[in-house]
Amino acid sequence: MRKIRVISVGKIRDSYLQEGLKIFEKKLSHYCDFSTVIVKESPYKNTNHQIAIDSEGDRIQSILNSAHLTVACDEKGSDQSSLAFSNLISNWANQGHSKIDFLIGGAYGLSDRIKSFSSYKLSLSKMTMTHQMVRLLLTEQIYRAFTIIKGEKYHHS
Amino acid sequence: MRKIRVISVGKIRDSYLQEGLKIFEKKLSHYCDFSTVIVKESPYKNTNHQIAIDSEGDRIQSILNSAHLTVACDEKGSDQSSLAFSNLISNWANQGHSKIDFLIGGAYGLSDRIKSFSSYKLSLSKMTMTHQMVRLLLTEQIYRAFTIIKGEKYHHS
Repeated sequence: MRKIRVISVGKIRDSYLQEGLKIFEKKLSHYCDFSTVIVKESPYKNTNHQIAIDSEGDRIQSILNSAHLTVACDEKGSDQSSLAFSNLISNWANQGHSKIDFLIGGAYGLSDRIKSFSSYKLSLSKMTMTHQMVRLLLTEQIYRAFTIIKGEKYHHS
Repeated sequence: MRKIRVISVGKIRDSYLQEGLKIFEKKLSHYCDFSTVIVKESPYKNTNHQIAIDSEGDRIQSILNSAHLTVACDEKGSDQSSLAFSNLISNWANQGHSKIDFLIGGAYGLSDRIKSFSSYKLSLSKMTMTHQMVRLLLTEQIYRAFTIIKGEKYHHS
């Protein structure tokens, strides 16, 4: 079974996002071994953005697994339609990458180091969203991708 | 005061999206006269997509105001960063367009007719999202745009 992790910085505080995420995490559990790993926000997140980005990056790095494909969520990454994104996931699996880690940075994004060694940089939108909203959107898109792969009716092109 | 309407097809059923929207609608009320207008979904939405799209389009059209600028949300529209989007809203106001209607289609999108007479086609993402999630994202982006215009701290570039 495919294993997908979303590695994200900081707990979700908004209850509506927690509720939305739960819905898609539950749906996803029928398609893959899905989990979310939360790393702590840096105490410097409001005072020194660069220190915060770097230390959050170090925390993300410490739990990465070299056997997994890493996909960094980055506004400046490659933007894909939902169909193209599902093809990416399929193709990665065909190439032997059935374990994927999606990385979402904190309030000020991912460190350059994390981005540079990620196998793929994915842009969900050119617009800036809160990193917590990115989690909801990404989880929904991963779910959507699996329904496309399985030929189910959720996605309307 | 600027007047912004989001005109959307179908009520939101998911309570988490209702809750998220409420949060941003309340925040937005400090920046503009913001309202949401819901038009009914077509009874044909599950049986004949084209009839549904066209009849939902007619319903949207019936409440448009020719004095308002209309912005259609469309995956194939122009994608903008949040900063560029805030500049668009500012520029429209400078050109005398302080009343804007944002249009979100139903499950199968907006009719070609609605798109063709909209002043602007905006893509929030190349990815397909549920039209209800589009409402949350759009409302957050309009809020974000006003905080950028006012030079507030919500947005991190």
